[in-house]
Amino acid sequence: MSRPTPLPFAALPTRAFHATARVRFGDCDPAGIVFFPVWFAMANAAIEDFFGAELGIDFHALHATRRIGTGFAHAEADFMAPGLMGDQVALTPLVTRIGGASYALTLHVHRAEAELLRMHLVTATTDLDARRAVPIPPDLRAALAAYQGRCADA
Amino acid sequence: MSRPTPLPFAALPTRAFHATARVRFGDCDPAGIVFFPVWFAMANAAIEDFFGAELGIDFHALHATRRIGTGFAHAEADFMAPGLMGDQVALTPLVTRIGGASYALTLHVHRAEAELLRMHLVTATTDLDARRAVPIPPDLRAALAAYQGRCADA
Amino acid sequence: MSRPTPLPFAALPTRAFHATARVRFGDCDPAGIVFFPVWFAMANAAIEDFFGAELGIDFHALHATRRIGTGFAHAEADFMAPGLMGDQVALTPLVTRIGGASYALTLHVHRAEAELLRMHLVTATTDLDARRAVPIPPDLRAALAAYQGRCADA
Amino acid sequence: MSRPTPLPFAALPTRAFHATARVRFGDCDPAGIVFFPVWFAMANAAIEDFFGAELGIDFHALHATRRIGTGFAHAEADFMAPGLMGDQVALTPLVTRIGGASYALTLHVHRAEAELLRMHLVTATTDLDARRAVPIPPDLRAALAAYQGRCADA
Repeated sequence: MSRPTPLPFAALPTRAFHATARVRFGDCDPAGIVFFPVWFAMANAAIEDFFGAELGIDFHALHATRRIGTGFAHAEADFMAPGLMGDQVALTPLVTRIGGASYALTLHVHRAEAELLRMHLVTATTDLDARRAVPIPPDLRAALAAYQGRCADA
Repeated sequence: MSRPTPLPFAALPTRAFHATARVRFGDCDPAGIVFFPVWFAMANAAIEDFFGAELGIDFHALHATRRIGTGFAHAEADFMAPGLMGDQVALTPLVTRIGGASYALTLHVHRAEAELLRMHLVTATTDLDARRAVPIPPDLRAALAAYQGRCADA
Repeated sequence: MSRPTPLPFAALPTRAFHATARVRFGDCDPAGIVFFPVWFAMANAAIEDFFGAELGIDFHALHATRRIGTGFAHAEADFMAPGLMGDQVALTPLVTRIGGASYALTLHVHRAEAELLRMHLVTATTDLDARRAVPIPPDLRAALAAYQGRCADA
Repeated sequence: MSRPTPLPFAALPTRAFHATARVRFGDCDPAGIVFFPVWFAMANAAIEDFFGAELGIDFHALHATRRIGTGFAHAEADFMAPGLMGDQVALTPLVTRIGGASYALTLHVHRAEAELLRMHLVTATTDLDARRAVPIPPDLRAALAAYQGRCADA
């Protein structure tokens, strides 16, 4: 399990979407750095913004109205540098795989040019009422594919 | 990235340590299941108990007095079944690697016999004041190795 | 808004219910003490235990099956001493008022004899589906009154 | 303990500072509304923004560098309407009292014109290393008083 080499912010795809967040006092632990589970909550918030602002899909309506869940089948993070109180960070999701009932994102977290951590997240789409897997809804699939294409452009 | 096959609780090493936790109302999201970052916070709490009750090392004194940090270099989870409000879960850490300045744990989370999720966690020991890596303290190293040995016993 | 005088643990009613919790690393902030919103989450967990173990009412079934909500109309806390990493605390709810569609609890939090904080919580019972106030269910009302009576006994 | 009458957003002082936040999926509980301790964490984040953007005092440097704590002696909230997933809210702090070693804020939380909740927060300034009360630092005192004055202007 070798650790990734930090990727400078400038090396991200030009057309990638960036969510932003600020590290809060309450996000930090007695070691003075972001308590690691908070990064996963920030990632989820970044994906909410990504859905609404980049994919054109209202994350909250998807859950509350359409009753489609986007829970994680897998979540992992490599921590390269600590986040500190007051840090402004950019969270950049990139689509790495679009399957039948799941898709995968890599999410880079940067403070200025420095990559602090990198996540790999596999989301399984589910019917929230029946609690079973369902195919990725066509509008979400199309939006993910279009974004993936935009990021691949030179 | 294939998903693991759930391991029945009964298949864990006989002498493994089990922390316990209860899924709280506030741990759950509008989908009615544990919000995934909460599992990582529960894992950290389980490791605190593991240190105190099994390794004989006070987790809080390690940080506050000895100023040794046990932050994660890597954390990942495969989610196999959702946790629900009121669930009683067992969290079982197993030592998989003891390196120079880091060690790895696999942490299984079960509700009765069903494995809900499995985490792989790599901890790097640090000097909290100097914010740099330090070798695993000898008492912690010895305790981790002894526990690993007990778990390997038939 | 004068601050309350700490009440020794021994001065609590003999038959009062005590939930217990441990202050975790992740509950603490860069000042090294419990981040104050965490106390409110701990209070909710204590009330879950109080419902199940003392009132004989399953908190989670009340919400998930019976669809009765127990949200707060008012929540307040006076902080008298900080909670520290590793602290074992007792959370003691006392019923102070039972109204038509709401009831009030005082919740004392102690570390050994020292009262760390005291909360006053007003809960309004609601129909979770209709999102409107409903009378306190009869079984909950009877259990709250019986507990209040037990605590008032000399 | 009578409940306050909601104050329309338009009735707030013209020159009051407003922090903003978005209610996230992970902020909500199985009842589908903001889990109440989250409001207190949002309040703390709003005060961080208030310090930096309105008072001209870096909240994080105040703690990390100057080692002044701004912990709460008292925190309370009246909940008037639930917050829902995706809500955009404005958090408006008003200074109500400036004492020797403590100050009080009222913090209104609105979604558009509707006040969802109102908090009263008493902050005690402390020396984080000595863990004892200290007078409000002069720059913070002056900034709080100036803001209070601006809000009182017609």
